[in-house]
Amino acid sequence: MTLKTTGTAASNGIGIAPAYIVDKPDLSFEKRRISDPFAEIQRFKNALLAISNDLRAIKKAATKKLSKDELAIFDVHIEILDDPEMFNQVVTRIRSQRINAETAFEEVITRVIHEFESMTGNKYMQERATDFASIRDQVLAKLEGKQLPNLQTLDHPVIVVAHMIGPSDTSQMNAKYVKGIVTEVGGRTSHAAIMARSLQIPAIVGCKKIAHQVKNGERMIVDGFSGTAIVEPIAQQVEHYQQLASQYAAEKLQWAKLVDSPSVTKDGQQLTISANIGSSNDIPAAVNNGADEIGLFRTEFLYMKSEHLPTEEEQLRAYQDAVESLGGKALVVRTLDIGGDKPLTFMPLPHELNPFLGYRAIRISLDRPSMFRTQLRALIRASQFGQINIMFPMITTLEELRSAKKIYYEEREKLRQDYPHVGANIKLGIMIEVPLAALYAERLAKEVDFFSIGTNDLIQYCFAADRGNAAVSYLYQPLNPPFLKLIDHIIKSGHQHNTTVAMCGEMAGDRLALPLLMGMGLDEYSMSATSILRTRSMMRNLDIKECQQLYHEAVTKCETANQVHDLVENWLKANN
Amino acid sequence: MTLKTTGTAASNGIGIAPAYIVDKPDLSFEKRRISDPFAEIQRFKNALLAISNDLRAIKKAATKKLSKDELAIFDVHIEILDDPEMFNQVVTRIRSQRINAETAFEEVITRVIHEFESMTGNKYMQERATDFASIRDQVLAKLEGKQLPNLQTLDHPVIVVAHMIGPSDTSQMNAKYVKGIVTEVGGRTSHAAIMARSLQIPAIVGCKKIAHQVKNGERMIVDGFSGTAIVEPIAQQVEHYQQLASQYAAEKLQWAKLVDSPSVTKDGQQLTISANIGSSNDIPAAVNNGADEIGLFRTEFLYMKSEHLPTEEEQLRAYQDAVESLGGKALVVRTLDIGGDKPLTFMPLPHELNPFLGYRAIRISLDRPSMFRTQLRALIRASQFGQINIMFPMITTLEELRSAKKIYYEEREKLRQDYPHVGANIKLGIMIEVPLAALYAERLAKEVDFFSIGTNDLIQYCFAADRGNAAVSYLYQPLNPPFLKLIDHIIKSGHQHNTTVAMCGEMAGDRLALPLLMGMGLDEYSMSATSILRTRSMMRNLDIKECQQLYHEAVTKCETANQVHDLVENWLKANN
Repeated sequence: MTLKTTGTAASNGIGIAPAYIVDKPDLSFEKRRISDPFAEIQRFKNALLAISNDLRAIKKAATKKLSKDELAIFDVHIEILDDPEMFNQVVTRIRSQRINAETAFEEVITRVIHEFESMTGNKYMQERATDFASIRDQVLAKLEGKQLPNLQTLDHPVIVVAHMIGPSDTSQMNAKYVKGIVTEVGGRTSHAAIMARSLQIPAIVGCKKIAHQVKNGERMIVDGFSGTAIVEPIAQQVEHYQQLASQYAAEKLQWAKLVDSPSVTKDGQQLTISANIGSSNDIPAAVNNGADEIGLFRTEFLYMKSEHLPTEEEQLRAYQDAVESLGGKALVVRTLDIGGDKPLTFMPLPHELNPFLGYRAIRISLDRPSMFRTQLRALIRASQFGQINIMFPMITTLEELRSAKKIYYEEREKLRQDYPHVGANIKLGIMIEVPLAALYAERLAKEVDFFSIGTNDLIQYCFAADRGNAAVSYLYQPLNPPFLKLIDHIIKSGHQHNTTVAMCGEMAGDRLALPLLMGMGLDEYSMSATSILRTRSMMRNLDIKECQQLYHEAVTKCETANQVHDLVENWLKANN
Repeated sequence: MTLKTTGTAASNGIGIAPAYIVDKPDLSFEKRRISDPFAEIQRFKNALLAISNDLRAIKKAATKKLSKDELAIFDVHIEILDDPEMFNQVVTRIRSQRINAETAFEEVITRVIHEFESMTGNKYMQERATDFASIRDQVLAKLEGKQLPNLQTLDHPVIVVAHMIGPSDTSQMNAKYVKGIVTEVGGRTSHAAIMARSLQIPAIVGCKKIAHQVKNGERMIVDGFSGTAIVEPIAQQVEHYQQLASQYAAEKLQWAKLVDSPSVTKDGQQLTISANIGSSNDIPAAVNNGADEIGLFRTEFLYMKSEHLPTEEEQLRAYQDAVESLGGKALVVRTLDIGGDKPLTFMPLPHELNPFLGYRAIRISLDRPSMFRTQLRALIRASQFGQINIMFPMITTLEELRSAKKIYYEEREKLRQDYPHVGANIKLGIMIEVPLAALYAERLAKEVDFFSIGTNDLIQYCFAADRGNAAVSYLYQPLNPPFLKLIDHIIKSGHQHNTTVAMCGEMAGDRLALPLLMGMGLDEYSMSATSILRTRSMMRNLDIKECQQLYHEAVTKCETANQVHDLVENWLKANN
């Protein structure tokens, strides 16, 4: 029977394929006394070896398809399997307590997982917990002779249906055959949603109970535009969505032609569409997708992947590499934004009850200025090789901004003894992501060359709703009228003082937000590379005056985010 | 040598007494193999018994001085000491591994502590971890023949100096002899600060490194007005502060005369000063301190102390008791505000990475409406016995408010079949504590009879700074100009629609905030009972027009919280 259900539209596109339910078999087992420890140890050893061999084989086969980072996950898993300490602990238990391998192994690995999990402020450690949990399942399944679902070995098109998709699942997924993703939990900024958008796979998240409503192999349609999932569709539905899919494919071909076109509105106003990136490895994709600039270069990965504090020279090389590969396009670098959910191996941070409301970003930089000074020096020196702009994250008060600027100018002065005029072309800016800074935009604008509105954080603080928490994901409401007015206030405040206003949160790439933001006068739209061409195509068909009217209507006639959603949706339909 | 240092002024008053440093002795020990397990077990048994006897004796001696809740802490500790399971685990280890009692005991109790600590979203469990940690220290000290500092056995006046003061320390403290408190960490809303204000003990928090700069028995002055601590003061300083202390004592006598006076401004405007309470037990203190009303009755403790969901009849009794003991004064009841850091034993909530940005308060009530309906029914029925007003916490969007109101009116209609006209006198309001609600005050005001601004939460969200986190406590800035403007916006928006505007956060009882809030036109000031008379005394000396000018000056001439602080401080001096 046909079933139609909805969730949160998380990644555009239409997918039609049989369902593939990522659901673990029952891996429970009984604690058992064994009579022959030697044989039991052998059984355990064989299981580890078999999995480790499987992983090596899959890795080899996937070497060309996957990126370096994706391949590294295999090595992590193989390393865990080969770890002699874990092995010895299990063997000792089997021998001394005469228990079965399942029991001994689960006791040992569960303790490790709990240790990682208890570091709740630390996303890196939590991901390690996910790695160990994956190994636990693989080993138990092997010992029990059961089969785990394996996204790696997909060889035909499917719609992946899961309770949740984590980084570990993603890394194993053969994206070629994944035509759609539907998860039961998560919001627009969950891992599954962000990953799906970056791989351009249609996706719906927060589709409650879907995994229990569909059987493996049943035909499914995923409409990532509206958030609608259909199980066992009737013929007319299939036809309708196939038509939508080919329309969308045609649109994508049209967009691809816009790679070298300017980001200009219908009425001829020049705007900027830029890309958010995490390292210079991401620059080719950004350029190939037509980015006018790099609007957000996150520097924390430079620190997170390092075992020591990156030196000035190491950082200089990284920034120089990045800016030189941009051929004159600007690179906006955000200074270190650690803390919250981003830890550093060489600098332990305190455990916090609410890390998103804690010691992070500029708060750490101002509290431990030597690390901040090193980064600023590297950036100022790198500005000799291209257009580098610097922005400070999490600025809350005027004093913080002044302290950060003071340190910046001190380092620039010192460097000018060796490199005269260095840094003269750098523009200084701040992220507007804390409500207080948004409220004080008219004053902060006097102090900087540009703002970049970080909507992901700004929304979570304004709505008091952690964007990673599924229980409150309904409060991710960028279109809520008072929130729109706050954005407008930031933009108007910036313009009063000739401060350019950019946006680098998810909202900048949201098709419903685009005409509203254009109506408010936003200058720069920074987003994941895969959204750039779609946005440029839309932008070129929109008239600023009409967008202004739309925005005015949204904040005067609408009272809820849903009403704005419908208003813009209808307006776009009428405008096409 | 005299040393003068400053921290955050946390509780008014002057204290002069010798320092009493709450600093643990070194309790480290060596793991040791023992030859006589029987003797070692006996040594461990004796230590437990000695502590348990000590605790019983102290409890007996303190029975009259302490409240029921404070006495209950002793029982919790004695129960832990008597727990046969813990005892057996330690004994087994001593016997089988032939290790000393310190090692065996610490292994066992540390595991328990970690288990409690790992429940990071759960403040109750974290407090249990504190209880066990206290027992660990007591047992280790006894085994090692060392003395722990003990605030219970104080028998002479002291200034307590500590790195931090937690609930466990407070419960043991003989407040009669504590003339002042200085801690190294914490902000104005930390446990130590709130406790000190409620006990009316002068206190300074966040006084960095003080515990290492003062020796036990050295004379100290604590100036809880300015946040200044002086160690080994010279004679003139002692004289100066003794004078201040007697001035303050005289002031307090004056204030006491205002118990039955109206909360009226110098120019004759009638305002309301009310009390925040946690249960009907707090009502006598509120009334004795001259509360005009109860501005915030927190109902979560009714739920937290219960093993089951309180029934409609149980709640009705509690609300009826409270409102009847008020003799006609209004009782503003906040509906259940659990989640965040407040757990319920009978309703496990999910572990959250950022509980303050999570599933809490009205979000839970709307998601599990049967519990909410029971509370509303009890409140509506209780309104037959006095003036009960109801407010919803954590309202973020207009839809949430409408859903809550819809449920309220449904229950009222049902009840009216049995009790005609019931609830006709109830006023409905909301807390304004989420930035989005503050931004949307002009729209929300149309829907309710009153607002109550919850500044503790509103500040932590606006500044993205957890109020329990010492590392970011510098961002607790109620006087920051854009924040003041936001408060003003809420008040003006309320008044446009005849909505009364109250405030029930710490800011309402802040002497520097008072003239500014009066200048904005705030109607009702709800605070801890001990601040009421001081506030009323100030209020009666302030002229609304002059306060309006002061507020205007603060938001036009000042750019930082510090500048506003100095402006108001000087203005108050000049006005006296």
